[in-house]
Amino acid sequence: MSLSSQPLVGVVMGSRSDFETMEHALKVLQELNVPYEVRVLSAHRTPHLLSSYAQSARGRGLRAIIAGAGGAAHLPGMLASFTTLPVLGVPVQSKAMSGLDSLYSIVQMPGGIPVATFAIGRAGATNAGIFAASLLSSEFPEIRESLDSYRQRLTQAVLDDPYFEGHPQA
Amino acid sequence: MSLSSQPLVGVVMGSRSDFETMEHALKVLQELNVPYEVRVLSAHRTPHLLSSYAQSARGRGLRAIIAGAGGAAHLPGMLASFTTLPVLGVPVQSKAMSGLDSLYSIVQMPGGIPVATFAIGRAGATNAGIFAASLLSSEFPEIRESLDSYRQRLTQAVLDDPYFEGHPQA
Amino acid sequence: MSLSSQPLVGVVMGSRSDFETMEHALKVLQELNVPYEVRVLSAHRTPHLLSSYAQSARGRGLRAIIAGAGGAAHLPGMLASFTTLPVLGVPVQSKAMSGLDSLYSIVQMPGGIPVATFAIGRAGATNAGIFAASLLSSEFPEIRESLDSYRQRLTQAVLDDPYFEGHPQA
Amino acid sequence: MSLSSQPLVGVVMGSRSDFETMEHALKVLQELNVPYEVRVLSAHRTPHLLSSYAQSARGRGLRAIIAGAGGAAHLPGMLASFTTLPVLGVPVQSKAMSGLDSLYSIVQMPGGIPVATFAIGRAGATNAGIFAASLLSSEFPEIRESLDSYRQRLTQAVLDDPYFEGHPQA
Amino acid sequence: MSLSSQPLVGVVMGSRSDFETMEHALKVLQELNVPYEVRVLSAHRTPHLLSSYAQSARGRGLRAIIAGAGGAAHLPGMLASFTTLPVLGVPVQSKAMSGLDSLYSIVQMPGGIPVATFAIGRAGATNAGIFAASLLSSEFPEIRESLDSYRQRLTQAVLDDPYFEGHPQA
Amino acid sequence: MSLSSQPLVGVVMGSRSDFETMEHALKVLQELNVPYEVRVLSAHRTPHLLSSYAQSARGRGLRAIIAGAGGAAHLPGMLASFTTLPVLGVPVQSKAMSGLDSLYSIVQMPGGIPVATFAIGRAGATNAGIFAASLLSSEFPEIRESLDSYRQRLTQAVLDDPYFEGHPQA
Amino acid sequence: MSLSSQPLVGVVMGSRSDFETMEHALKVLQELNVPYEVRVLSAHRTPHLLSSYAQSARGRGLRAIIAGAGGAAHLPGMLASFTTLPVLGVPVQSKAMSGLDSLYSIVQMPGGIPVATFAIGRAGATNAGIFAASLLSSEFPEIRESLDSYRQRLTQAVLDDPYFEGHPQA
Amino acid sequence: MSLSSQPLVGVVMGSRSDFETMEHALKVLQELNVPYEVRVLSAHRTPHLLSSYAQSARGRGLRAIIAGAGGAAHLPGMLASFTTLPVLGVPVQSKAMSGLDSLYSIVQMPGGIPVATFAIGRAGATNAGIFAASLLSSEFPEIRESLDSYRQRLTQAVLDDPYFEGHPQA
Repeated sequence: MSLSSQPLVGVVMGSRSDFETMEHALKVLQELNVPYEVRVLSAHRTPHLLSSYAQSARGRGLRAIIAGAGGAAHLPGMLASFTTLPVLGVPVQSKAMSGLDSLYSIVQMPGGIPVATFAIGRAGATNAGIFAASLLSSEFPEIRESLDSYRQRLTQAVLDDPYFEGHPQA
Repeated sequence: MSLSSQPLVGVVMGSRSDFETMEHALKVLQELNVPYEVRVLSAHRTPHLLSSYAQSARGRGLRAIIAGAGGAAHLPGMLASFTTLPVLGVPVQSKAMSGLDSLYSIVQMPGGIPVATFAIGRAGATNAGIFAASLLSSEFPEIRESLDSYRQRLTQAVLDDPYFEGHPQA
Repeated sequence: MSLSSQPLVGVVMGSRSDFETMEHALKVLQELNVPYEVRVLSAHRTPHLLSSYAQSARGRGLRAIIAGAGGAAHLPGMLASFTTLPVLGVPVQSKAMSGLDSLYSIVQMPGGIPVATFAIGRAGATNAGIFAASLLSSEFPEIRESLDSYRQRLTQAVLDDPYFEGHPQA
Repeated sequence: MSLSSQPLVGVVMGSRSDFETMEHALKVLQELNVPYEVRVLSAHRTPHLLSSYAQSARGRGLRAIIAGAGGAAHLPGMLASFTTLPVLGVPVQSKAMSGLDSLYSIVQMPGGIPVATFAIGRAGATNAGIFAASLLSSEFPEIRESLDSYRQRLTQAVLDDPYFEGHPQA
Repeated sequence: MSLSSQPLVGVVMGSRSDFETMEHALKVLQELNVPYEVRVLSAHRTPHLLSSYAQSARGRGLRAIIAGAGGAAHLPGMLASFTTLPVLGVPVQSKAMSGLDSLYSIVQMPGGIPVATFAIGRAGATNAGIFAASLLSSEFPEIRESLDSYRQRLTQAVLDDPYFEGHPQA
Repeated sequence: MSLSSQPLVGVVMGSRSDFETMEHALKVLQELNVPYEVRVLSAHRTPHLLSSYAQSARGRGLRAIIAGAGGAAHLPGMLASFTTLPVLGVPVQSKAMSGLDSLYSIVQMPGGIPVATFAIGRAGATNAGIFAASLLSSEFPEIRESLDSYRQRLTQAVLDDPYFEGHPQA
Repeated sequence: MSLSSQPLVGVVMGSRSDFETMEHALKVLQELNVPYEVRVLSAHRTPHLLSSYAQSARGRGLRAIIAGAGGAAHLPGMLASFTTLPVLGVPVQSKAMSGLDSLYSIVQMPGGIPVATFAIGRAGATNAGIFAASLLSSEFPEIRESLDSYRQRLTQAVLDDPYFEGHPQA
Repeated sequence: MSLSSQPLVGVVMGSRSDFETMEHALKVLQELNVPYEVRVLSAHRTPHLLSSYAQSARGRGLRAIIAGAGGAAHLPGMLASFTTLPVLGVPVQSKAMSGLDSLYSIVQMPGGIPVATFAIGRAGATNAGIFAASLLSSEFPEIRESLDSYRQRLTQAVLDDPYFEGHPQA
């Protein structure tokens, strides 16, 4: 299957203040050539929109939804309760609990309704983006190639490190 | 205002396995003469029912909803997002995390949508029931009297303790 | 019942340093047209005042007490032991433990004496204020209307977000 | 694309003692008609096998790998470092730390190498299985149908609950 | 100063269920010849008794109060707010949080009102008893002697261990 | 007994970097007229000095030792193993664990060797100083009077708060 | 260098109750042909013996000390403060805190005095024994050979697992 | 055996950002005259290099490997799975979890494959360096002497502290 500009991944976040974290998902999706769309959607302030977004997602051609939220983070789990598309959750780092509340609220879903959870904060947002590419990689050869190049660049960055060849003292 | 048999408090729980905890809310509501109804409602498995239950609650005469759930416990918070009635959350003790996941998922709600949270497990279920009576006590003199008697029985139980008068050694 | 300027909610805090957190409760009470009073009351430094405040609260017309405290936070629980009015506890973020000590000291009350607990810090103070309005909303139609408008403004703020209509890349 | 008996999902576990947890992934994969294979593979005791398993996985037709491990759980992350297939991690409940060590060792992957993480223990194993079906559901209509039926059965189980129609007291 | 049968230490506990823990304080006080009295006193269920007990304690000849409580444990801190006698707190092991809630509620007292805190559970109760003897040991030579003998017995028990002289393999 | 300038309390700390915390113990001892001495003593870097300091403490007239330390804080417990004087432990706030490591290393002493533990950081240092005064207050009337005045100043500071008389809005 | 029956490793434990954990260190030392000795030594109850044991250890030919302790575990760190031999610490699983207190008290040593720390409980005891063999393996070829065989047996146990060849369903 | 410039210790780190922590290991190795080499090696980005580095380490004359990593830190454990040399792990302080994730991922290794773990951050890096010297100290008298001098300097720094001789007030 070949890629069009039709979004394959929806990226949603509970509030604009989560953007600083979630933009790392957007960056890596762009780098990996995965078409996406972005929405601010709040489980608590816009519950009706949440349900219509999730219910229409598959019909609109989305293959996965990435959702970032903090605190008692219900956005990823509630999206997953309204769709059988893969939902990827990113725990945003919270003020008092450093994101431990976000992590537990997302990862500890009861058996039956899964949310794939990633690390707290920026690393998690980046990895949710890469994982979205990864779950599209069998079907879309272009994404698989982007993913392979991305991985090679990661490896090369380590090999190019001046410390790789050793240290003056050694 | 005087009491009829019309339920004033809705008690909902995420799964039948939460009943062992939540029956302590039912017991104390009965003891305090607060009329209530009980439902099993799952945020994740029956999201549509959750929203219709919460949206119709005030119209049906409910004054408060008590919701117990465990793990990534979204039930209390999602009820609160669909109604402006007081929602009281009871974190059910979970297996791996002993209810810490349940507590954080319920108490750490973002500013704007409150859930009044009680202790993990049985003590929390009992206290949610008493608190429901407490928030009805200004309007319903009978409930206030029940509450006063309940408090006196608690105090008397301590005073009646044989250790109250001291210990043989002393 | 219609509103007068008679305070319906007492807002107390363990120390002046808690004001930075608790003013968010005051702001939202004002926004929701709930008349309130404010006091500094320390469970540990002014225990006699605490007991007289709590014991006279119902007689003076209060319908609920919001209490914020940090560390080994005994203020909300001790108020609840001297009154059967609803007591709402706000865990103030502490220095070493980021408010986890405050949260546990408030939420883990034994069965019999409930304290309705909210999130650590600012979000919890705001939500305690909204919850106080919520428990008055059946009796006071004006407060119910304020609450409905407040909720609509929360929702609208999300809908007005420029990201709601989508993202240039999508 | 239609299903053959060719495994699409590899389920690996760090030790036979993890089977009690991981069999819940196998059960749900079977229920959802997703062909799978099972291996015991230890990151620490059989590191060479881990790398050859991960490196050959895509070529052998696998679309995803589910890996369960406990304690300092390195199996999911190391599989992810040798393949760009989606890797799904299940934290097995450990003795001293109840799986918190397993959870942190799996979910807190650095940016670049993602592991999709699920709840500690049985719920996580079940959800990893469902999620695997979910990421195959766009390409394989039979799996999507299985997934839809599974979700309906979950919902129906709540609706069939005798408490759904209410409680004698209400 | 010589010892009479007049109690020097008050041992109080929040509920009879704490006795299993607190009896270890009683045992060691007896072993160290420290006269004591025992009371069940609840911060939440008998707040008036708590204040009168604490306020009369010094006048009745007590030199220290040992208080055991669990969960949101307010008993030791509230005793300390009503007396300037040394208050020794024992966190009783709770069900959901294994006593972490008890520990934080007791030890994290704000500057100004101290509670000397000991380990969670049995070890803490024993040590509170020994510490009470210790703070009386400068004034009461008999207690100091008891304390010295107790310490020697502890040491001797290690020296008498058959492993002390080594292990067959060594 | 009347006070001379002879130190009654030894204040020791594991390293000079702990001074910022421990000076709050010194300040309050001075304010309460308790004569004290100060030493830097490291359990790990000067173990011989630690043992000689603790063993000579009672003979030199000390009535209690306050010890502050951070991380794997062994100083208070090791002092307690070399003397039967009361040892008061102050957990210093550490960098990575915010003093949780310090707290657990001090408070979780095994049955037999007690360390009276106070809050993490400044509040704990202040309270250790007050507690030292408190354990001397039965024997030294001057200290008891200082303690009573100190407590009254604490109470008055709350009563003098402009919020005590209420708030413009109320 | 060749092995005699002279102990190269001292295994000490804070109390006989730690034996159930520490015997796993003894078993693996025996299996790896490392001569050892065993002692019960308490940091708190026998501090003088601790210091003389540690100070004489190198002179008696020991190359490393393995120390297991629980709660506020000071034994490994205090041994390390009296010797420059490698000290290996095993956190014994405690009752209330499941060994988290033991772990933090051992691993969070300040810069200058190292303790090599292993996992909580049985796995940690086994690994401390293997690590002791490992640090002797460059000097003693027999131990290196034992270690190589041990590692091969670990690997072979995985390869021999019936699941290694796959699962009936696959 | 006498020292040449041939590296005896390999210091590896998961990323250049770990250098700020790991340079404290390098500094103390230099101070203790232990020849070492430095490499950046990532478990996740360069898994093949990791395995070849670990497998060749003993043959190249290394006696121990120090590995620092953060988050889901797999580097020390995976090195240990490819060699029977002693592996020393340093948990690097992470952003959201302050290094608790790093600590648990390193210390909680399953029985069979040991990693000697040190404190989170700078203290741990310093101590891993000292410990490496310590395990070489029986074989290399020069290193033992360096280690003895280092320990004496630590002790002397405490003795030279102006507070050692007491405090003006005392």
